[in-house]
Amino acid sequence: MRGNTFGKLLSITSFGESHGPGIGVVVDGVPGNLDFSLEDLQKELDRRAPGKLKGTTARNEADRAKILSGVFDGKTLGSPIAVFIENTNQRSQDYDKLKQDFRPGHADETTMLKYGIRDHRGGGRSSGRETIARVIGGYFASLVLPKEVNCRAFISKLGPYEFKGVPNNINDDFGKYSFPGSESDDEIGNYLEKLKKDGDSIGGRVRVVVEDCPKGIGEPSFDKLKADLAKAVMSIGAVVSFSYGLGEEMANMSGKEVSQSRDNFGGIEGGISNGRQIVLNLTIKPTTTIGEKAKEGRHDPCIIPRAIPVIESMVKLTLADHYLRQNAYQVSND
Amino acid sequence: MRGNTFGKLLSITSFGESHGPGIGVVVDGVPGNLDFSLEDLQKELDRRAPGKLKGTTARNEADRAKILSGVFDGKTLGSPIAVFIENTNQRSQDYDKLKQDFRPGHADETTMLKYGIRDHRGGGRSSGRETIARVIGGYFASLVLPKEVNCRAFISKLGPYEFKGVPNNINDDFGKYSFPGSESDDEIGNYLEKLKKDGDSIGGRVRVVVEDCPKGIGEPSFDKLKADLAKAVMSIGAVVSFSYGLGEEMANMSGKEVSQSRDNFGGIEGGISNGRQIVLNLTIKPTTTIGEKAKEGRHDPCIIPRAIPVIESMVKLTLADHYLRQNAYQVSND
Amino acid sequence: MRGNTFGKLLSITSFGESHGPGIGVVVDGVPGNLDFSLEDLQKELDRRAPGKLKGTTARNEADRAKILSGVFDGKTLGSPIAVFIENTNQRSQDYDKLKQDFRPGHADETTMLKYGIRDHRGGGRSSGRETIARVIGGYFASLVLPKEVNCRAFISKLGPYEFKGVPNNINDDFGKYSFPGSESDDEIGNYLEKLKKDGDSIGGRVRVVVEDCPKGIGEPSFDKLKADLAKAVMSIGAVVSFSYGLGEEMANMSGKEVSQSRDNFGGIEGGISNGRQIVLNLTIKPTTTIGEKAKEGRHDPCIIPRAIPVIESMVKLTLADHYLRQNAYQVSND
Amino acid sequence: MRGNTFGKLLSITSFGESHGPGIGVVVDGVPGNLDFSLEDLQKELDRRAPGKLKGTTARNEADRAKILSGVFDGKTLGSPIAVFIENTNQRSQDYDKLKQDFRPGHADETTMLKYGIRDHRGGGRSSGRETIARVIGGYFASLVLPKEVNCRAFISKLGPYEFKGVPNNINDDFGKYSFPGSESDDEIGNYLEKLKKDGDSIGGRVRVVVEDCPKGIGEPSFDKLKADLAKAVMSIGAVVSFSYGLGEEMANMSGKEVSQSRDNFGGIEGGISNGRQIVLNLTIKPTTTIGEKAKEGRHDPCIIPRAIPVIESMVKLTLADHYLRQNAYQVSND
Repeated sequence: MRGNTFGKLLSITSFGESHGPGIGVVVDGVPGNLDFSLEDLQKELDRRAPGKLKGTTARNEADRAKILSGVFDGKTLGSPIAVFIENTNQRSQDYDKLKQDFRPGHADETTMLKYGIRDHRGGGRSSGRETIARVIGGYFASLVLPKEVNCRAFISKLGPYEFKGVPNNINDDFGKYSFPGSESDDEIGNYLEKLKKDGDSIGGRVRVVVEDCPKGIGEPSFDKLKADLAKAVMSIGAVVSFSYGLGEEMANMSGKEVSQSRDNFGGIEGGISNGRQIVLNLTIKPTTTIGEKAKEGRHDPCIIPRAIPVIESMVKLTLADHYLRQNAYQVSND
Repeated sequence: MRGNTFGKLLSITSFGESHGPGIGVVVDGVPGNLDFSLEDLQKELDRRAPGKLKGTTARNEADRAKILSGVFDGKTLGSPIAVFIENTNQRSQDYDKLKQDFRPGHADETTMLKYGIRDHRGGGRSSGRETIARVIGGYFASLVLPKEVNCRAFISKLGPYEFKGVPNNINDDFGKYSFPGSESDDEIGNYLEKLKKDGDSIGGRVRVVVEDCPKGIGEPSFDKLKADLAKAVMSIGAVVSFSYGLGEEMANMSGKEVSQSRDNFGGIEGGISNGRQIVLNLTIKPTTTIGEKAKEGRHDPCIIPRAIPVIESMVKLTLADHYLRQNAYQVSND
Repeated sequence: MRGNTFGKLLSITSFGESHGPGIGVVVDGVPGNLDFSLEDLQKELDRRAPGKLKGTTARNEADRAKILSGVFDGKTLGSPIAVFIENTNQRSQDYDKLKQDFRPGHADETTMLKYGIRDHRGGGRSSGRETIARVIGGYFASLVLPKEVNCRAFISKLGPYEFKGVPNNINDDFGKYSFPGSESDDEIGNYLEKLKKDGDSIGGRVRVVVEDCPKGIGEPSFDKLKADLAKAVMSIGAVVSFSYGLGEEMANMSGKEVSQSRDNFGGIEGGISNGRQIVLNLTIKPTTTIGEKAKEGRHDPCIIPRAIPVIESMVKLTLADHYLRQNAYQVSND
Repeated sequence: MRGNTFGKLLSITSFGESHGPGIGVVVDGVPGNLDFSLEDLQKELDRRAPGKLKGTTARNEADRAKILSGVFDGKTLGSPIAVFIENTNQRSQDYDKLKQDFRPGHADETTMLKYGIRDHRGGGRSSGRETIARVIGGYFASLVLPKEVNCRAFISKLGPYEFKGVPNNINDDFGKYSFPGSESDDEIGNYLEKLKKDGDSIGGRVRVVVEDCPKGIGEPSFDKLKADLAKAVMSIGAVVSFSYGLGEEMANMSGKEVSQSRDNFGGIEGGISNGRQIVLNLTIKPTTTIGEKAKEGRHDPCIIPRAIPVIESMVKLTLADHYLRQNAYQVSND
């Protein structure tokens, strides 16, 4: 009830603060006897990890996943899977001066309002490190979903760079910044580097595409697939808008126009998947760490590349949960 | 688990199909001993009812609320409050020809995919009549929330008509189409009338403003206030996008720009309310009932005016639920 | 969160007070396209109804089930099924004198403590009439469970009458008081009649037997089948003890004794069903309506016969819910 | 949904298997700013730990609690509190011969039936080590409950030793076997020692007493306090019966008898606490580890003494959860 658990039949319960011992997650609802690969899990985590890209943070957090339960001999047991990742890189600072440092757009003040206390040494629960738990969950969601389900997110807008529509092959390389076409990598790298020098940051847009989503998932009236997907991605700190299908464009369209193709509805009709391509669009706010602080190595002038695997994970968790929900009711009692 | 219940500490469980006996709701979690007014409840329902506006449907459904439980002598009992509204106006049709009529953007096909059966006489659960349950819930949410909380939704865009920002006084008259400034009523009426004659419809945008929201509500990491508000409104059939604060605009903004005012974050920081004005923006898709069918009296060329109380209700239900959640933890054990 | 919903994947949400318009229930999670028979549902309700037995209440409440949603043309739709039963037989009384009448063992005082208000005209939510909702739920649970599942409850002790063990054929006639062997009916009838004349009542024991329960249901660690069955039946007002298998007898037994047969564990090992016969034993408290009031026609000197279908219903709801839970995880992603 | 989480507003999510890295728990719903003492937590764990008593297991598992999150500078943060305890004492064995060793009354066979896989090296999730998570939860429940709430469990029957009623002062010393009156310690020790030599074990009874429980907690109809307490303790592997107040005795009592004192109803009327002493009675089955294996140091001839803190913890978790639930609805909107 304190909002640290996501999902019903497949759920993740996240714990850990940025300046405590580490970040962990309990993944519950993974069926037994599925193949588990620590290497594959680590690969997903590495996509989220900082320190790899020009213009992104220089931290080198190991973020090595340690399995605490639920897996035995390369197989899931059906029991809850706990994974823990130590915090190895907290910098010691003059924390006392941070006690009253309430940054705009951050949880600093509201955490005090809510709990009457906060760990002023860092973001605590609201730190980006909490998204580690989501990425771990996303890996296990992949194990639960039918193998053909293909979920990819990419940057559709970053500063002056914009990509319209959906690439023909969503498995194509999206470049190291997750922007379609690796040919832009250098340009984007330079753009981000300049932002960092200026102590500034930039927002952007992300598009998510899901192919071969199982048909018939989503639970109207209230747990429509579009509603639960919205919640899933809006629960990520940096996401400030959500739409599906034509989304915001529909504000300017007539019924005759939108009825011309069922593809305009983004794979979801009546809140239920129809098997067509699901398309989501999100807005990511610019980080509000600016000025001198933003020039330090730790900070990203644009967090979207690192948010991509987090967004994919939340989408996959939502789909896998709804897939199990729909599966529950496939009983034949003849 | 079938998605017919919304909310945790204050919840609504909705039931009923458009062509069955009626639509009902069980509201659970309303404290005992609160004043109840059937008249006030009916007023909210009347805002949603069709048949009042030029260019909107000519149906005259009575939609009289009948209280089945939970209220005694003008007071809530603390027990579940069930309210039922009969369907009095289903038209007899040649239903058989509707059996295979799968409309784009509707739940017709996906309902079959999901449940293996559907009531082909109408929208069934996916009918707009289901929103009656939400409006009833919204009324009771108002009883739960502190009296000073003020939640108003209005049309910010409808065809060529657009309103930017927030009116100085959100209690001002929004006109009979819920567009700020009643002086536009005639123009908008004519615009909608013409759409109807053409057998067409139009999408639009809605803005929601909440004043004096209690501070400290919203439950990170996953039940952030912005996430649960997103789910709440995205669970309404016609809503295709959600944003809060500057929302989609942030895609083009730098960190320096957005940091200039904490108002840019729409009253929610770190997923928790900070007591400032909450601002949400939604896109409503145009109805896909077009052509000859749209020219019949039953159908609205723009459903947004009728959606306004539904949207407000979902926002109020979300706020009231989170208000109770936060209240649960205010224990002092000294 | 106010305790009016039972079950997760198959759930019932109950509403209604004894002196309000009626008692209702929303059954959610019944798959679509299952055969529904109003007649069969009514038969279950009639088993619970008063007025049929010597020594039991003379009320003749019609208790006719009215379907409000979720069923069409004799089939379930997959949408929530609401059923309502009017209260037709409330007697007018001098209610004011009941305002401060706090009966021992009843909810009178505690309802005031909890909600700050109560409907003093009768038991309100705590009335036995609330169990109508459970029996309706039990009927739908039967539709969900595999057809071979056989769940029967019977009286194992009522005053001087006691039955040990389990009848060879649990489908045998249990007599009109649900005591094994109809030959005792006259004796028991006379016994109850005498109690009533004395203005007294009596407690007793109930045994529940389930044959052909699906294997592998129950969710350790906390939702063990034995734990959820305990909750299910202990949620019935009159039930004051629960055990499974040898139960209370095990207090006096050695490990060597109990290990002699796996049947001693009542069909549940490690909290999970093993396919063997499930055996539960419950104690029912005597009603505390005694003295002159108990001599009136309305009141039963022993409520156990009428509680039997309620107990069966709660057991079936629990089994059906767990059956769907286990089914949810039967996914093969090869 | 896989049964690894207990509680709603205050919840524990347990993870870990007996032969994996360790046992852990996420406690969610503890308000912020409460005093935390690792020493007090460890004390509770030590009560559950083996190796201290004559006739009980000789293992010396350290069971040192390691805090992973949710606590900072001796205060709770309001964020989820994760605690982990390493498994340090798994014995290496010829595990392969255990693969098909399905013990009666254990989860061995049913785990295979349910998940299609099991960790055959030991009890896995069904091991008694899982109860560590519950004791940790119980410690935090104490922080949440009003300080005056006093919850004590003790052995009321163990072989030939029996204690009737409730001690005048439940804070009195219950002896090292948790049997009232330490004068029996030697006798009981010898009794247990003899059982062990015989390769046998014994069942027994436990009584739980709660003083100064807050009034008005428990949520009828389905989450009655007696129902949720039943579930809580029946979720412990060894517990096979539950009753409250006079419980099983009521089967033989008349309404006139039970109405003589409100104390007969064990502090719960209509499913809601009335502030009087709550009394529960449980039956514990004898362990089915018998014969030569039982003579090894590892095994207890009677697990009840070690179950006592586990039972207290489940009761406290239930009370604290219901206390927060009732508190949630204490809103005044005047």
